[in-house]
Amino acid sequence: MAIISLITDFGLQDEYVGLLKAVILGIDPSATLVDLSHAVEPQDLAAAAFLLESSWRHFPPGSIHLVVVDPGVGTRRALLYHEAGGQRFLAPDNGVLSLVIDPQGTTVLRRVEHPPLPRACVSPTFHGRDILAPVAAYLAKGGDAAALGPEIAPDAITRLADLRPERSPDGRIIGRIVHIDRFGNLVSNIPAADLAAGRPVEVRLAGQAIAGLRTTYADGEGGRPLALVGSRGYLEIAVNRGSAQRYFDVRKGEAVEVRPGG
Amino acid sequence: MAIISLITDFGLQDEYVGLLKAVILGIDPSATLVDLSHAVEPQDLAAAAFLLESSWRHFPPGSIHLVVVDPGVGTRRALLYHEAGGQRFLAPDNGVLSLVIDPQGTTVLRRVEHPPLPRACVSPTFHGRDILAPVAAYLAKGGDAAALGPEIAPDAITRLADLRPERSPDGRIIGRIVHIDRFGNLVSNIPAADLAAGRPVEVRLAGQAIAGLRTTYADGEGGRPLALVGSRGYLEIAVNRGSAQRYFDVRKGEAVEVRPGG
Amino acid sequence: MAIISLITDFGLQDEYVGLLKAVILGIDPSATLVDLSHAVEPQDLAAAAFLLESSWRHFPPGSIHLVVVDPGVGTRRALLYHEAGGQRFLAPDNGVLSLVIDPQGTTVLRRVEHPPLPRACVSPTFHGRDILAPVAAYLAKGGDAAALGPEIAPDAITRLADLRPERSPDGRIIGRIVHIDRFGNLVSNIPAADLAAGRPVEVRLAGQAIAGLRTTYADGEGGRPLALVGSRGYLEIAVNRGSAQRYFDVRKGEAVEVRPGG
Repeated sequence: MAIISLITDFGLQDEYVGLLKAVILGIDPSATLVDLSHAVEPQDLAAAAFLLESSWRHFPPGSIHLVVVDPGVGTRRALLYHEAGGQRFLAPDNGVLSLVIDPQGTTVLRRVEHPPLPRACVSPTFHGRDILAPVAAYLAKGGDAAALGPEIAPDAITRLADLRPERSPDGRIIGRIVHIDRFGNLVSNIPAADLAAGRPVEVRLAGQAIAGLRTTYADGEGGRPLALVGSRGYLEIAVNRGSAQRYFDVRKGEAVEVRPGG
Repeated sequence: MAIISLITDFGLQDEYVGLLKAVILGIDPSATLVDLSHAVEPQDLAAAAFLLESSWRHFPPGSIHLVVVDPGVGTRRALLYHEAGGQRFLAPDNGVLSLVIDPQGTTVLRRVEHPPLPRACVSPTFHGRDILAPVAAYLAKGGDAAALGPEIAPDAITRLADLRPERSPDGRIIGRIVHIDRFGNLVSNIPAADLAAGRPVEVRLAGQAIAGLRTTYADGEGGRPLALVGSRGYLEIAVNRGSAQRYFDVRKGEAVEVRPGG
Repeated sequence: MAIISLITDFGLQDEYVGLLKAVILGIDPSATLVDLSHAVEPQDLAAAAFLLESSWRHFPPGSIHLVVVDPGVGTRRALLYHEAGGQRFLAPDNGVLSLVIDPQGTTVLRRVEHPPLPRACVSPTFHGRDILAPVAAYLAKGGDAAALGPEIAPDAITRLADLRPERSPDGRIIGRIVHIDRFGNLVSNIPAADLAAGRPVEVRLAGQAIAGLRTTYADGEGGRPLALVGSRGYLEIAVNRGSAQRYFDVRKGEAVEVRPGG
């Protein structure tokens, strides 16, 4: 009884997500499906990569994570199977796995060349439904990943550039806002590990400075922005009971800087 | 362990969809629920009919498809049970089943007159929760459809007009855009079968001509529209990594024409 | 195999709802999850309270209702476990349980002081994922609620004010619009029990009078507003095949009055 998580850019208004589930359940009626998000902006590969990285550790071992953000559907781009940290990942080879593939770790990476397909007919515009969903269900039922296709080297796949922050010689970290959540919290790509515990910092965004890190939203003064490590494990800028997005009037991609001291 | 798919015009902000599921699971805890779409525009019967037709074939045999788009709730409009292609359908008699009922095929059609109701009290404004959900759960548990009500003739039920394209004597097919998906793809009501394989065609929309059919989105030149058979099995107009909806600035209902040659 | 319902203000674009489910299923793989709504406006405690009250009775006995609308996350606000009517409720102590806690009824109320936590690390900004989800899964698996923490008195918890309508000495009932659904139906906080069966009433909203109560939406004349008891069991103002919200151009909070006679 495996869990299959879903990340797509399909939205929920169309039938597309429901059809992924119909196909999976037709093959493995005992699969448990968990929607992570279907609101990835169309073809926003970096957003899908961050979403996946923020989520997979919270699933039980053996879970299967299916990412269908696939602007190259129907072309020769490969489909990938990846195993790491006791979990399994399926996605097009377009960079959405960039943040879960660790070239140093003991992992398995395969090109899916022999997907077990239940239907003779594959739509050239919906490989999520007609190829990836059957593969996910095959794995959920205990199918052997080795039969999917040959192992490949981690450096043979597509990686997205610029996902990680830069460090300048003077100790500054320059990252950017990679996600804005429903509450208007601004989530950066600067990981908690870069904010060494106890050392004072100053966070700069859109020409303003925020001194120090707080622990939780309620530590913020009314209407004033605060910086903290959010639930994704990254530096986040928030306004208690308000919206940092509205406060700063910024968009995804905006630069965020962390300076020692402050 | 039956699958029950759901199509409604309830949206997801209210508790309505959750209550359908609560009632179903209270009667059959082993039912598996799949959301197809709850974003049908309020009372848009044609949209629900196309959504259902595009979806049901991807479900395993024995699945139950529940459609709750029901502007006549609380009136004398009948509720229908339909069996076709190894699947089961439940919906108000308002035309939403128009595209799955085939007068020529061997099918069963019943008027639901004796729904097995767990609650004494039926809200006159929410038959989805208080009548249709219990009937779906009854069927999922193996209940006998014959007990629901008498068989009726296919021509006794409500049909929506103008769902199918017209064919003119000179070989042109005149259809219309019946769905615009999240990517801005324009989905027509012209089925793939009408676009005879290999024969050249010209597609006309909003005063513009698109020559030929492509196979997949990536076959399109940057920013230019293309025509193809989409994953629903109908003629679709798209812009690769863009939005055909924005390109043409059209709405649902816009005429689409297919001409031989091109 | 318990059902766990979810009410949050998380929206569906972020990974937050999916992570609640991942954590629950990691602890109890047989739990069945039902989304009631994730579209509660951020921090709108009253909306969550009404949603919960309108929903829980439709679930089978033993269901667990998890409400994560939690502006005080990370502060000293308590987490509550509540048992009533054969159902179980988990929520922060901020008033969202106001409408399901009956000081007169035989109920159990506990402060969750010893949550069984699977992870050493609890994010101070996401107790839903790191504390409440594990507690819900613990209960779903048959865990003993008594181990969660001490019983407390119903008057020791936070209540929201002004949820119920007022009655004036001359027999008028003054309530307000507490929910506007996708169809534009205006749902008030005036319960059906206050509209004594058969007695004529006049409903006043935004300076207009609506005479009498109808039974179902289709009883309304084209384009004219009508009043009825909606599926929540409260007075509702609707426009048949239209939107009462657009008709009256009102917002949540608008006063609604019911007068005898009419």
